[in-house]
Amino acid sequence: MIPGPFLLYLGHSDDEVGIKTSRGLAIFRPDDCVGEWRHDDCPLTLGLPRMGVAEARAAGAKTLVLGIANAGGTLGEALVRDALDAVAAGMNVASGLHHRLRDEPRLVRAAEQAGVALFDVRDPPAHLPVGNGRPRAGNRLLTVGTDCSVGKMYATLALHDALNRRGVAADFRATGQTGILIAGAGVPLDAVVADFISGAIEQLTPARSDTGWDLIEGQGSLFHPSFAGVSTGLLHGAQPKALVLCHDPSRPHMRGLPHFQLPDLADCLAANLSVARLTSPDVQAVGIALNTVKLDEASARRLCADTGAALGLPCTDPFRFGADPIVDRMLQCFAPSSQPISASA
Amino acid sequence: MIPGPFLLYLGHSDDEVGIKTSRGLAIFRPDDCVGEWRHDDCPLTLGLPRMGVAEARAAGAKTLVLGIANAGGTLGEALVRDALDAVAAGMNVASGLHHRLRDEPRLVRAAEQAGVALFDVRDPPAHLPVGNGRPRAGNRLLTVGTDCSVGKMYATLALHDALNRRGVAADFRATGQTGILIAGAGVPLDAVVADFISGAIEQLTPARSDTGWDLIEGQGSLFHPSFAGVSTGLLHGAQPKALVLCHDPSRPHMRGLPHFQLPDLADCLAANLSVARLTSPDVQAVGIALNTVKLDEASARRLCADTGAALGLPCTDPFRFGADPIVDRMLQCFAPSSQPISASA
Repeated sequence: MIPGPFLLYLGHSDDEVGIKTSRGLAIFRPDDCVGEWRHDDCPLTLGLPRMGVAEARAAGAKTLVLGIANAGGTLGEALVRDALDAVAAGMNVASGLHHRLRDEPRLVRAAEQAGVALFDVRDPPAHLPVGNGRPRAGNRLLTVGTDCSVGKMYATLALHDALNRRGVAADFRATGQTGILIAGAGVPLDAVVADFISGAIEQLTPARSDTGWDLIEGQGSLFHPSFAGVSTGLLHGAQPKALVLCHDPSRPHMRGLPHFQLPDLADCLAANLSVARLTSPDVQAVGIALNTVKLDEASARRLCADTGAALGLPCTDPFRFGADPIVDRMLQCFAPSSQPISASA
Repeated sequence: MIPGPFLLYLGHSDDEVGIKTSRGLAIFRPDDCVGEWRHDDCPLTLGLPRMGVAEARAAGAKTLVLGIANAGGTLGEALVRDALDAVAAGMNVASGLHHRLRDEPRLVRAAEQAGVALFDVRDPPAHLPVGNGRPRAGNRLLTVGTDCSVGKMYATLALHDALNRRGVAADFRATGQTGILIAGAGVPLDAVVADFISGAIEQLTPARSDTGWDLIEGQGSLFHPSFAGVSTGLLHGAQPKALVLCHDPSRPHMRGLPHFQLPDLADCLAANLSVARLTSPDVQAVGIALNTVKLDEASARRLCADTGAALGLPCTDPFRFGADPIVDRMLQCFAPSSQPISASA
């Protein structure tokens, strides 16, 4: 486990979506975050005290979390220098970037000298199996999306919270660096070797014999030309009984790709159900999760109502308004009495 | 480049599909193969002289090719011992397995002492880009399949041969270990980190401004629950103008998965066209390639005729009967006069 409390890095970021790992920790583990480190050119804030490494160390921070994301996940020179400063101040460094901290000799040397640790959250487990698609027992829900970074993790954590409040056993299964930092476990799916995508998810969500749920954080989108392979393997490995489609209505185009429009919601849901049926023939959609952060409350509620009516499914912003409408549908569709648990694989 | 001539390893294999890398080299680079090394319990043969390492070395072999495949690509104890024997006899060792030769300390030490090299063909290139899906110029054809190991590489190489004989420029783009060993270049797609699948293919098949073709070797199947993520990313990265669907009519179930049936050919083609349209909206199917090795000639020709009629496409066994029917359709659909080359991305 990565030692808290954390100093959350924003650096020079000027893209809200790019700081999603730092923001996720600030929101879902607030008690473990002492401050945010941003440079003068960074217009963003998490609402935490702004501090550098010395103040953070004095405030008790044990680990700098490089909670920023960029396409490709590279570790630039500015980032390395800031990480070296944190190490020199006696802090561990954790990163979810593809480019590993341990592949940067200056950091490795400095960390050794300072007696601190480097954590590469995106290291996949060793010895992953190839997926086998064999039917396995248990309730699994997967969040899928019209695009990357549209709120799949938030929706999954909100469902987890709503189920727990009703006394239904539920486990959050993290598949990305932010989720893994929040949950303390999971598999960084986009860093797994391509042949093992579905196998990694089968291992992460083994058969369960109770009436509880594995709630699996989705990744990417079948309609994102950079990452649809990850989304496809995730759908097959998850073998989901239930899908929730996540969408950000303010997104002007596919993330990072101005030349790609977002898919129609009904088309996107149909494509996800079609791919999921290969390993889970009876899969059902149980709701739509909208990320309405950029809408006022009345507009957000109206959009949820309209979207739900158009698609014939419960629709909510689960982080803003709670996940209960979707949980109601889940528990109705998969009531324990009407749900034979097949023999485990 | 890996030094030939080669000794091809069959080992203890008793599965025809499992020795496909050794067989591919024997067929497509016959002049570079001096013999086959099989143990007494191996009922298979490539029709080459059977020899051990000492005889192979005496016959001029410079490299032992561990041309066998198994799900997961592990390097078992028996395989390591045989590789050590080859090294002791003064031969290099090449492997396309996921488990790397260089991760086996005994082999690394022995190779150093003997002054020979270890080649891990499945090492992906460093610094792959994330795919961007931007339209790029040029003719690209991708072979897709109902299953793994149904003849996609053979079909692609047969198309390459047929186009070359007609004086049409064509490049074979290898995406698997066998193809890479045959071509001497390519990207081992199933070993690429999941986030970079489509980007690796965009890099392998850059924009081309002539009227020739990139012929891209397909991988896996959208209907194989272990590997469909790879196939999806490959479709998006390839941005193909043309698809050829490959199928083995003798396959009783999906490879390695007795609980999964093969898809219907029309369904499989429709699914591949649908996924491909995300980055190549005008993609067309130009043919069906059957692997008829287990049928007599009359049955094979009848099956090709019937399958072609049912799907409204040219159908052949391109390795057995030549790829001309498919090439005719390609050149008709994409005649240079009717084909505007769009600006390169």
